[in-house]
Amino acid sequence: MADVLRVALAGLGTVGGGVIRVLDENRELIARRAGRPIEVVAVSARDRLKNRGVDLSRFAWVDDTATLADVEADVIVELIGGSDGPALALARRTLAAGKGLVTANKAMLAHHGLDLARAAEEAGTALKFEAAVAGGIPVIKGLREGAAANAIGRVYGILNGTCNFILSKMESEGRDFAEVLAEAQALGFAEADPSFDIDGVDAAHKLSILASLAFGTAPAFDAVEISGIRHLLAADIAEAAALGYRVRLIGVAEAGASGLFQRVHAHLVPSDHPLAHVTGATNAVVAEGNFVGRLLFQGAGAGAGPTASAVVADLIDIARGEFGPAYAMPADALATTAAADSGERRGRAYLRFSVADRVGVLAEIAAAMRDAGVSIESLIQRGASAEGSVLVAIVTHEGPERCVEHALERLRGSQSLTGEPLWMHILA
Amino acid sequence: MADVLRVALAGLGTVGGGVIRVLDENRELIARRAGRPIEVVAVSARDRLKNRGVDLSRFAWVDDTATLADVEADVIVELIGGSDGPALALARRTLAAGKGLVTANKAMLAHHGLDLARAAEEAGTALKFEAAVAGGIPVIKGLREGAAANAIGRVYGILNGTCNFILSKMESEGRDFAEVLAEAQALGFAEADPSFDIDGVDAAHKLSILASLAFGTAPAFDAVEISGIRHLLAADIAEAAALGYRVRLIGVAEAGASGLFQRVHAHLVPSDHPLAHVTGATNAVVAEGNFVGRLLFQGAGAGAGPTASAVVADLIDIARGEFGPAYAMPADALATTAAADSGERRGRAYLRFSVADRVGVLAEIAAAMRDAGVSIESLIQRGASAEGSVLVAIVTHEGPERCVEHALERLRGSQSLTGEPLWMHILA
Repeated sequence: MADVLRVALAGLGTVGGGVIRVLDENRELIARRAGRPIEVVAVSARDRLKNRGVDLSRFAWVDDTATLADVEADVIVELIGGSDGPALALARRTLAAGKGLVTANKAMLAHHGLDLARAAEEAGTALKFEAAVAGGIPVIKGLREGAAANAIGRVYGILNGTCNFILSKMESEGRDFAEVLAEAQALGFAEADPSFDIDGVDAAHKLSILASLAFGTAPAFDAVEISGIRHLLAADIAEAAALGYRVRLIGVAEAGASGLFQRVHAHLVPSDHPLAHVTGATNAVVAEGNFVGRLLFQGAGAGAGPTASAVVADLIDIARGEFGPAYAMPADALATTAAADSGERRGRAYLRFSVADRVGVLAEIAAAMRDAGVSIESLIQRGASAEGSVLVAIVTHEGPERCVEHALERLRGSQSLTGEPLWMHILA
Repeated sequence: MADVLRVALAGLGTVGGGVIRVLDENRELIARRAGRPIEVVAVSARDRLKNRGVDLSRFAWVDDTATLADVEADVIVELIGGSDGPALALARRTLAAGKGLVTANKAMLAHHGLDLARAAEEAGTALKFEAAVAGGIPVIKGLREGAAANAIGRVYGILNGTCNFILSKMESEGRDFAEVLAEAQALGFAEADPSFDIDGVDAAHKLSILASLAFGTAPAFDAVEISGIRHLLAADIAEAAALGYRVRLIGVAEAGASGLFQRVHAHLVPSDHPLAHVTGATNAVVAEGNFVGRLLFQGAGAGAGPTASAVVADLIDIARGEFGPAYAMPADALATTAAADSGERRGRAYLRFSVADRVGVLAEIAAAMRDAGVSIESLIQRGASAEGSVLVAIVTHEGPERCVEHALERLRGSQSLTGEPLWMHILA
């Protein structure tokens, strides 16, 4: 059996501990599959004394994380997190030293992925990040390799487990967002500061990575249109259900003649679509190829075990020597594509208005729609809520998004509205 | 850009034509992703003159398929089919010549996979077969690489699109098997001789390949317990639905202390399980890993485009040099595991009896169950059918399969039964 693959591990949180446990528990099996043993030789984290439930005494300890790149190891695993700072410093130093880098850091990749890929290429070493998107699901590999024969038209999915947990709980229990968020935080499914998750930023990081792999374009996080699920009401989910849809936070990217379109937004998903059945913290990604058709990858999107499984899969690929350019092609071969104008996209929309309970409100909304050229497919008005305002939910026929924007602009500042309108797209 | 990867193609049926089309239509993209162009240089098929809708004049034509292994090419793609004969002869000659082999031939792999893997290793060349299981879904890669960090406890799925098409049509339209089969044949979803599909053999070929990859065991097709869907009635599907289940032909493999268990059998799938939502000719595979949890891969299981997509993905891996042992580890490292005794498996069963409409029949069945130690969870008897016989459907509590076998033995030859009992397992 060939030489040991020596691994140095930066960051000993949940995932770091998970990586050590996977390599311990599945030690023999991994060596058989990888063709050689994979061993952690050194670790680094902020607090040396913290009890992490794993025996660290067998590993060299490095205090200054950046210098972990200098230890005698073949691969550095970066699990520190954060788009810049110590994670980026370590990543750069690792690749400059010609060592392989495995990372779960979607924020760093979203912002610096192209530079890091270039550095890996120059050094002739590996940059791998299966764990950065959709936890344990091998979707990076699925796009980079499994679907590589296809021109991908669209890639989309449920990329944030926290949001999906909250949305499926709102759905099954008919409860409002704030209440379910608090419960998710108590259960550890949401962070104390949940904004990265619930405002769609985390999903957008992941989407930008998927889009790059799917379309052969340079990662373009700044071009992702982002919104989250904070403003959803239990009533929105109930109206959607009545219409035959479930509500999911979907990241969607599409490459077309008009440019690269990337969006994270709450969507109505038809109840017979596979993503409608994805509940709880599960993630799922769909890729549509010009020959393979629709591929679906589904599984646990987070957690120590699944994420560590993806990190170790990357290590096994490196141990086998089965790796190449991070984004499937040399960094300089990635196209730089302009962002598509989303106003020109055609689709159906769900619009919900909180309105005052008085004469003429419906007429005002309907007139705004008409004047902006938005065709209404269905409209539901339910009786007043406890707070005295009335909800009007509209589903539009297919049309340009720009018309919906114009309709909402016409209604801006209207005395009839008691709150911000909500706009969800309907997944086609 | 590096040298062209030269491909010779044996078999110009639907999939062979698909491979040529993928390589033509996605030519530039594939070259960018693979790091070099992939070009067909020679082809071979039975009938040179048949119009296949693709221009073959640009390729060398080889009459004697076995000698395709001798042309100036880097990889031979075998799409002839059949476990032995010309396909096997070509495969052996290809590997002996040190050329890479890509095949979609599940029957050949089920019977000769280990020998071929050994030959590829000896020659230091590639043996790849993504297209052999679940069409375009990259599940071979998912197990070999994506889930490689995990001990897999169980792998199971919907592996035959023809059966799933028939079962979902029986379900949605309440029609009987024979009628739906005839329609599937007319639509081209089932072969004129459908027995490989509907009797479970095709799914068993695929299952034996998945099991080998999942568990690191030598392929053991002969140890797969096989049955099909021929004997299912519309009434079985209706009873299952009333109990909260859908009926699917499931291939399932499990590795445990008692050995390797492999079975293809109609199962009742709980309606909240992802496989319950897989309809039509779609395939789906679930792998359960000790760290990653449940992974699901879903997509088109057959057809020219999806299957060709998988073949070309293998070619891209070879062009990139990203390949290793066919079964993830050297052939000699694969364990030879005894077949598990399925009688010792515990589970719940659905049993359906066609019985004469007279006094005492139910008592006889109930007594047989009691005497064999089978505990009944629910029993439904519906009024007589047009043919005058009555259906009794039983769902058992969890217990050893051996007890159910004994109960059915006790009832064998009983004058009360007007037909063979049907036994389906309930997926847990």
